[in-house]
Amino acid sequence: MTESPAGTASVPGPVAGSARWPEQLPVAFSDPVYSAAVVDLLAAIAYGEMSAFERLSEDVKMAPGLADKAALARMATIEFGHFEALRSRLEELGAEPFEAMAPFVTAFESFHARTAPADWFEGLVKAYVGDGLAADFYREVATFLDSDTRAIIIESLSDAGQSAFVVDRVRAAIAAEPRLGGRLALWGRRLMGEALSQAQRVAAERDALSALLAGGVDRPALDLAAIGRLFTRLTENHSERMKALGLSA
Amino acid sequence: MTESPAGTASVPGPVAGSARWPEQLPVAFSDPVYSAAVVDLLAAIAYGEMSAFERLSEDVKMAPGLADKAALARMATIEFGHFEALRSRLEELGAEPFEAMAPFVTAFESFHARTAPADWFEGLVKAYVGDGLAADFYREVATFLDSDTRAIIIESLSDAGQSAFVVDRVRAAIAAEPRLGGRLALWGRRLMGEALSQAQRVAAERDALSALLAGGVDRPALDLAAIGRLFTRLTENHSERMKALGLSA
Repeated sequence: MTESPAGTASVPGPVAGSARWPEQLPVAFSDPVYSAAVVDLLAAIAYGEMSAFERLSEDVKMAPGLADKAALARMATIEFGHFEALRSRLEELGAEPFEAMAPFVTAFESFHARTAPADWFEGLVKAYVGDGLAADFYREVATFLDSDTRAIIIESLSDAGQSAFVVDRVRAAIAAEPRLGGRLALWGRRLMGEALSQAQRVAAERDALSALLAGGVDRPALDLAAIGRLFTRLTENHSERMKALGLSA
Repeated sequence: MTESPAGTASVPGPVAGSARWPEQLPVAFSDPVYSAAVVDLLAAIAYGEMSAFERLSEDVKMAPGLADKAALARMATIEFGHFEALRSRLEELGAEPFEAMAPFVTAFESFHARTAPADWFEGLVKAYVGDGLAADFYREVATFLDSDTRAIIIESLSDAGQSAFVVDRVRAAIAAEPRLGGRLALWGRRLMGEALSQAQRVAAERDALSALLAGGVDRPALDLAAIGRLFTRLTENHSERMKALGLSA
């Protein structure tokens, strides 16, 4: 990617900022705008993981059998493990984790309220497509960050086992009942639309996050062309995932 | 306790049983009645843990704030970890875990349906009182088993952090609104009654489990006096827990 890394290379920020910059952190954190953006980003991902835990454990009720129940519960607990890691990191950065997460509650709750799965298969597709999209997006943003933060984000986005399990169950169900494919394809498009609209809302409301993407004297920016390429990649990956499920994007 | 252990001391069983007895297992498993009882017991505990996961993650929705949400979700994931350990052990014993759990689904679902918490505090009391009671009971039964099985059961019953958290929240809430104490005391009594009635039902339906408690030529029995003492201990511990919450039993 041409619009690549920085973060660790950023020069020390103003004195007001460095007063709150714990020495064990990368030098990038001496810039208070950068620090605020990282806290925002980690808090958003953390709340997303909590929200994924809640949604997956809610879907456990719809599982057609005990083995499926256990598979979904396992995914939920892995998401919660990611939440715990992000929460610890927020504390290391001197943030109060739950205060930091509060601004993102509405966006995630709106997303989930607008995309409540009607059955077991819609729940599976949502777990796969929704988490995949979020992971792609955070991974892109992570390339603009210091290497410590990047590593924590990448780790928190590791596949909670949903891919193989979901692909297997959804493909088998469509093979048994082809009409299901049409409904789930529409569902996948709706998930993509709702996710993008909530992401835009969050970006518009959080100045520090926007500033991060807009770059700075010491950090490369995501210019309009780069943002265009990012969305192309997100859309392409989404289509790949739909295809893996046997659905048209 | 006078009505204490055995299991590892049991003599090899009939040939029909020893044919299915993997050599790495304690000699007690050469008795097919013993094997069946242990599979039943581990499966019952495992489904109870899964059920606890579902119930706790359901209650996450009622949490008054993000920190409480995270605390309850953490308990749920710990219960699921216990489920995974018990499931592995069932596989080691040559059982199909989900088939083994199936006979216990109704009892746990009935218990939870009849004790659905009306609010956050009823949920907390249920987590504390219900898990405590189940843990006491399984721990008593475990004293009749081989040491491997006993260790796995004791491990799966370790406090998922609920005690300190629940006691703290419930006591604070009662201090703020004393009338809550009356309602929660009634709730605690109802939980105890429902749990005992489901436990009796399971014991009556599962011959192998009953045989275990009734003892055998090579195993000490729980005679009527011992069963009486067991119930006294369960009731006393329940009263202690209610007292810890600031509730009359």
